[in-house]
Amino acid sequence: MSLFLPHIERISGYVPGEQPQEAGWIKLNTNENPYPPSPRVAEAIQAAATSRLNLYPDPLATNFRRIAAEVYGVDPDQILPTNGSDEVLTIITRSFTGTGDLMAYPYPSYILYETLADLQNVSHQRLILDEQWNWSKERVGPVVHRAKAVFVPNPNSPSGNCWTTSQIAELVPPEGVLVLDGAYADFADEPQTAEILNADFGDRVVMTRTFSKSYSLAGIRFGFAIARHDMIAGLRKVKDSYNCDSISLAAATAAIADQAWMRANVARIRETRAWLTDQLIQLGFTPTPSQANFVWTTHPSGKHHEIYLALKARKILVRYMRFPGVDWAADRLLDGLRITIGTREEVAACVEALKQIV
Amino acid sequence: MSLFLPHIERISGYVPGEQPQEAGWIKLNTNENPYPPSPRVAEAIQAAATSRLNLYPDPLATNFRRIAAEVYGVDPDQILPTNGSDEVLTIITRSFTGTGDLMAYPYPSYILYETLADLQNVSHQRLILDEQWNWSKERVGPVVHRAKAVFVPNPNSPSGNCWTTSQIAELVPPEGVLVLDGAYADFADEPQTAEILNADFGDRVVMTRTFSKSYSLAGIRFGFAIARHDMIAGLRKVKDSYNCDSISLAAATAAIADQAWMRANVARIRETRAWLTDQLIQLGFTPTPSQANFVWTTHPSGKHHEIYLALKARKILVRYMRFPGVDWAADRLLDGLRITIGTREEVAACVEALKQIV
Repeated sequence: MSLFLPHIERISGYVPGEQPQEAGWIKLNTNENPYPPSPRVAEAIQAAATSRLNLYPDPLATNFRRIAAEVYGVDPDQILPTNGSDEVLTIITRSFTGTGDLMAYPYPSYILYETLADLQNVSHQRLILDEQWNWSKERVGPVVHRAKAVFVPNPNSPSGNCWTTSQIAELVPPEGVLVLDGAYADFADEPQTAEILNADFGDRVVMTRTFSKSYSLAGIRFGFAIARHDMIAGLRKVKDSYNCDSISLAAATAAIADQAWMRANVARIRETRAWLTDQLIQLGFTPTPSQANFVWTTHPSGKHHEIYLALKARKILVRYMRFPGVDWAADRLLDGLRITIGTREEVAACVEALKQIV
Repeated sequence: MSLFLPHIERISGYVPGEQPQEAGWIKLNTNENPYPPSPRVAEAIQAAATSRLNLYPDPLATNFRRIAAEVYGVDPDQILPTNGSDEVLTIITRSFTGTGDLMAYPYPSYILYETLADLQNVSHQRLILDEQWNWSKERVGPVVHRAKAVFVPNPNSPSGNCWTTSQIAELVPPEGVLVLDGAYADFADEPQTAEILNADFGDRVVMTRTFSKSYSLAGIRFGFAIARHDMIAGLRKVKDSYNCDSISLAAATAAIADQAWMRANVARIRETRAWLTDQLIQLGFTPTPSQANFVWTTHPSGKHHEIYLALKARKILVRYMRFPGVDWAADRLLDGLRITIGTREEVAACVEALKQIV
């Protein structure tokens, strides 16, 4: 007899993208930023490394929240810093969804949401997207109506498309929360702003942000939620007291204070994204126009797994993804490649390899 | 109507010890180590700060687990690193206890266990300790028998006493897990070793360790679990993929590799602990002999809150604690002071202040 709860025993756990720890790979598989973080980050870390690490961090992350609040035009008490935005997603499931409740999310989208639902032992249902990566309001309406939480990445992954606020409004559950996962927001033409919290459904919205993508800090595990005061006060009860460490706090505070650095990297990535999209088209691929730091593409041959393996043999890692149950794809299975935007040189090497492969 | 789950709405959240962020305090309230971490830690952090922070950390914490396994004489797959040992405690509640299940823990002990049970919406029951900080096997037996998880800090807080393995064996639930919280283990005469995992009940034991106390690294939020292979494999499914950041991993790996540094600090703290205990007795207090990095004491006057406030007025923070429902204390309320062992100078300043106050 297992001691584990039955729903924990049942799950296999989330499998993150491959993370080779040795050098020599061109890593275009987990949407990391190819550029280093602001030089102020290393300075802040070095200062933190030699001062009071023997003491607990500020459990309220006062300095970080003050600066983040300025950047987003909200109050510091509308910000909740977490150990990566993964942690805030976990905190949300634990706050709003219990056994018997329903969680929903667009599909194909971020696979982790399903794992989070399984871990919390809640039902989950997919809001199936069509070939244009949109939902039909009529089709998803009944699910949204019953959901206690709807998770929406905007821009979406793996597609990279961005939905408008009026589209998003269709996914707000009348008796639940909408989680707007903005992991890739900074790469969009018009990132979702905190303005949405002023909508009449704004008391039911939690926006999340991460430092793993636009701020080049996947290594420090830092994210945060933005929501109305009551929402943040409730979520704060569910987090561990000292969920963010002193060094990550110092690093994230330095990074968010240097908006110019982040924006310059985002601009370069957007340029390379346009170039890659164009190259893929020339090579006969069918890429989806992206608002994120990756491009989703299929190829008419359908040989996506073979292409992934051929790239891997050349030490180029991209993400091969398969989504069963998509009714507009062949055999109801959609698969394809998600290619992270690296440096221009890395992406050019990938394109060169693809020229040899396809 | 609140969107939050009823059990979340109900709780008020764990209140950690006061953490003044400005200088000038003698901080003897949250069991931090007064000495800096190994110098190798700052070196490791500085190296990590300037290399690949844009990439995700190793989700398996391979280097750390290798060294920790050597230190504890176990296999690397028997180690699960977490974001502070708080995170492993949360992971355990989510893995083993569901609605309707029972969690238990000695009382008085670490208050957080109750908060963790409330967050998971499980029942909890106290294993009431007697005046010698021991339990009666007859009294606690029926509760242990029904529990899905029993949390035991060893050494205990606030008392600082340590239980033997044969005592601990009385608390292993027949159909649940025993969590041996070893936050203070390194300060004991004979720290609990991983030997207990070889007992016939060893498949139902999870040991936890933290870097916040003996390793002087409360600021980096790092802890880990030690258990048998199956147990660790199950717990790993419940953690966030990237729960430990690159810098904390580098810092913890450097710290655990420098056992001599940790041991030297522990020796100094044990010396000061003996001195403080002696001084408290001379001042008319009734301290409990401690195996941890703090001393629990009462005073015959019972004016513990007044003494706490008088120390605070002198910028000396100790922890005033009150435990209702203790049947051997006056009015069933036990209160007292928990004084962290700081440097000899800090503790001497506290003693001087107490001389003026009592």
